[in-house]
Amino acid sequence: MAEALKVGVAGLGTVGTSVVQLLEKHGTQIARKTGRAVTVTAVSARSRTKDRGIDVSIFDWFSDPVEMAKQADIDIFVELIGGDTGAAEDSVRAALARGVHVVTANKALLARHGVDLAEVAEENNACLNYEAAVAGGIPIVKTLRESMTGNDVSRVYGILNGTCNYILTRMEADGISFEDCLADAQRLGYAEADPTFDIEGNDTAHKLAILTSLAFGTRISSDNIYMEGITSIATADIQAADELGFRIKLLGVAQRTETGIEQRVHPTMVPKSSAIARIDGVLNAVAVDGDFVGEIVLVGPGAGGNATASSVVADIGDIARGDKTLVLGMPAADLKPYERARMRLHEGGYYIRLSVFDRPGAFAEIARCMGDAGISLESIVQKRQALEEVQAKHDTDQPQPVILITYETTEVAIKEALDVIMSKGVVAEEPQMIRIEKLN
Amino acid sequence: MAEALKVGVAGLGTVGTSVVQLLEKHGTQIARKTGRAVTVTAVSARSRTKDRGIDVSIFDWFSDPVEMAKQADIDIFVELIGGDTGAAEDSVRAALARGVHVVTANKALLARHGVDLAEVAEENNACLNYEAAVAGGIPIVKTLRESMTGNDVSRVYGILNGTCNYILTRMEADGISFEDCLADAQRLGYAEADPTFDIEGNDTAHKLAILTSLAFGTRISSDNIYMEGITSIATADIQAADELGFRIKLLGVAQRTETGIEQRVHPTMVPKSSAIARIDGVLNAVAVDGDFVGEIVLVGPGAGGNATASSVVADIGDIARGDKTLVLGMPAADLKPYERARMRLHEGGYYIRLSVFDRPGAFAEIARCMGDAGISLESIVQKRQALEEVQAKHDTDQPQPVILITYETTEVAIKEALDVIMSKGVVAEEPQMIRIEKLN
Repeated sequence: MAEALKVGVAGLGTVGTSVVQLLEKHGTQIARKTGRAVTVTAVSARSRTKDRGIDVSIFDWFSDPVEMAKQADIDIFVELIGGDTGAAEDSVRAALARGVHVVTANKALLARHGVDLAEVAEENNACLNYEAAVAGGIPIVKTLRESMTGNDVSRVYGILNGTCNYILTRMEADGISFEDCLADAQRLGYAEADPTFDIEGNDTAHKLAILTSLAFGTRISSDNIYMEGITSIATADIQAADELGFRIKLLGVAQRTETGIEQRVHPTMVPKSSAIARIDGVLNAVAVDGDFVGEIVLVGPGAGGNATASSVVADIGDIARGDKTLVLGMPAADLKPYERARMRLHEGGYYIRLSVFDRPGAFAEIARCMGDAGISLESIVQKRQALEEVQAKHDTDQPQPVILITYETTEVAIKEALDVIMSKGVVAEEPQMIRIEKLN
Repeated sequence: MAEALKVGVAGLGTVGTSVVQLLEKHGTQIARKTGRAVTVTAVSARSRTKDRGIDVSIFDWFSDPVEMAKQADIDIFVELIGGDTGAAEDSVRAALARGVHVVTANKALLARHGVDLAEVAEENNACLNYEAAVAGGIPIVKTLRESMTGNDVSRVYGILNGTCNYILTRMEADGISFEDCLADAQRLGYAEADPTFDIEGNDTAHKLAILTSLAFGTRISSDNIYMEGITSIATADIQAADELGFRIKLLGVAQRTETGIEQRVHPTMVPKSSAIARIDGVLNAVAVDGDFVGEIVLVGPGAGGNATASSVVADIGDIARGDKTLVLGMPAADLKPYERARMRLHEGGYYIRLSVFDRPGAFAEIARCMGDAGISLESIVQKRQALEEVQAKHDTDQPQPVILITYETTEVAIKEALDVIMSKGVVAEEPQMIRIEKLN
């Protein structure tokens, strides 16, 4: 057997600690499977003395990860520091520059500097593996980089953020508000104290940017992502979705269109019968549509120390075997520029929830506005029960919820129609609009 | 770029034709992704003149695949002949023996000769890739061989036969009998004229034998698989499952137990809330439980020319990149012997459907027999409606369906209890027994 592969781990949080434990626990098996023993020889973290359940005294210690990347006697640098600049970026560049392979779970870093880092890796004949950066324990990076070799991908989409999916699942299951679910998620450790990055869609967008590049062979373009979070989702939407045969999921979707590639992150109505609709709680799922394979869907844990460590170690294993898949699935120089499809040209069905004043002609006005914009309606649902309650109170001026489901139309048509409706004074508040995703 | 990789395709049925078309259609992209052009240079099939929609005249023609494996100027031999002996086996051995890489979709060959062929491949420094042999377009072989490097797998299971899943799905959706569904499946081309191999579970067993070896690092042991097909499933079972919160799926399950590894193929009650329960029609799904990753589930098309070709080409792509994963995930010599867990020691819950004579004491007799065998009942359902109909006809001796759901017990206890119940003369026919799988 070849000489042992020496690994340096930078960042000893939950994932880093789990990586060290995994390599220790399954060391024999990993050597058997890859043909090389894999040993942690160096670590770097903020505190040397913190109790993590592992003995760090047996490793070379570096208080500065960049120093470790530059100096340590290692073959693989495992970056688990996080952040798209600073120590994470500097250490990864330093490692690659001297031909040390890098394994990272850092989606922000890849989303921002992925192409650039791929070039550095190629120049130095080093691997840059990042299975853990997208959807935690799910092998979606490998699937796109290797298993899709013979496919032209038309769409990749998924539930890429466990926090949002937990909140949406709880809202539906327990009929409670977004705010209450978020508080619960924070209490259970499924959401950060500052959850903005998750609930506004940024985290999903970072992962989507990477998937887009892998799926379509384009340069990563994380600034060109249409993004809507889940904060506007009301229990009324969750209930209406249920009644209409849908569930609401925060999806990241990258899709080839005639005018370019759409990259979008937004709450989405998905048919209850679809595989993606059944993904509950903190699970993640990613689907890929290829011209030869059809659709495949991968489901699993999107976060957590052990699941993420599993992907980190799979990446290390590939290096140990000598596999040399290109960072973004092809030479960085061959990646095409990302051509953005304009969101206003997006085509699809729409769910619209309006709060309509219960006056004669209001309904007709709304229907006319949609018709004038060339939008056909698949269904109109007025909440009769609510109406009866209101009539019992003799308060007919109280606005009534009305749900519209449109046939396929364009984003620009919907937006224009809603603007006109707003201008007519027939609705009491900003309309809610949720896109419907066409799924098998 | 390195010299083009020369591929010989043996077998030009649906899959073989699709492989040739795919390599032609996506040739540029494959070269970019793998660093090598991939060209079909030789083919072998029964008829040279049959119209397949591809021009075979541009390839070297071999009427004998073994001759092609021995003589053709190729780097990769793609075996799509089928069968576990004869030309398929001989040609694969011949190719490997001279160091030509092999890509195959042949589950029967792998299930029977996999370890032996792995040894030949290793001796000759050749790859033997077979993603398409298990679950068609789903990258489960790669996931187990590469992505699970850091996991101790406790169970792998799945829906591995599209024909059976189509039949079970239709039986539930349309309330029609097994026989009618099978006839429909045959008419639609989802079932063979002789469907025995599918509906009795052999096809699932072949795939399971391969998955077991990959998941547990054991020698393939396709003769040691407990196997029950779906022919005994009645609409009464489908209905009862639905009412009790289950769906019936034909699963292949390999599971580590205290006494060894269970390999079993049988109709299974799965909770409706589980991911596997939602897999409808001809789709396949495979789930893997690992100690670090938790559970991941892969869903996709299990058959079809294009989906299968996608996996064949992914395997070719890995070879083009120079990746050299070991055939069974570790050196064949390191594989442990397969230790069979005895089916009689299988532990789980059971669904039992009895046809009980409606006589005083019959119920008590059954309950006592179960109790005597140490089996606790989670629920007993008697079909009241049926009973009323019967009473209206004053025909109280007509047997009544009674459904029992047991708590976890052993196979041997259930079998003994059912034997005793049979001997008491309280039931009118052989009991139906379906195992319940514990799922997340």
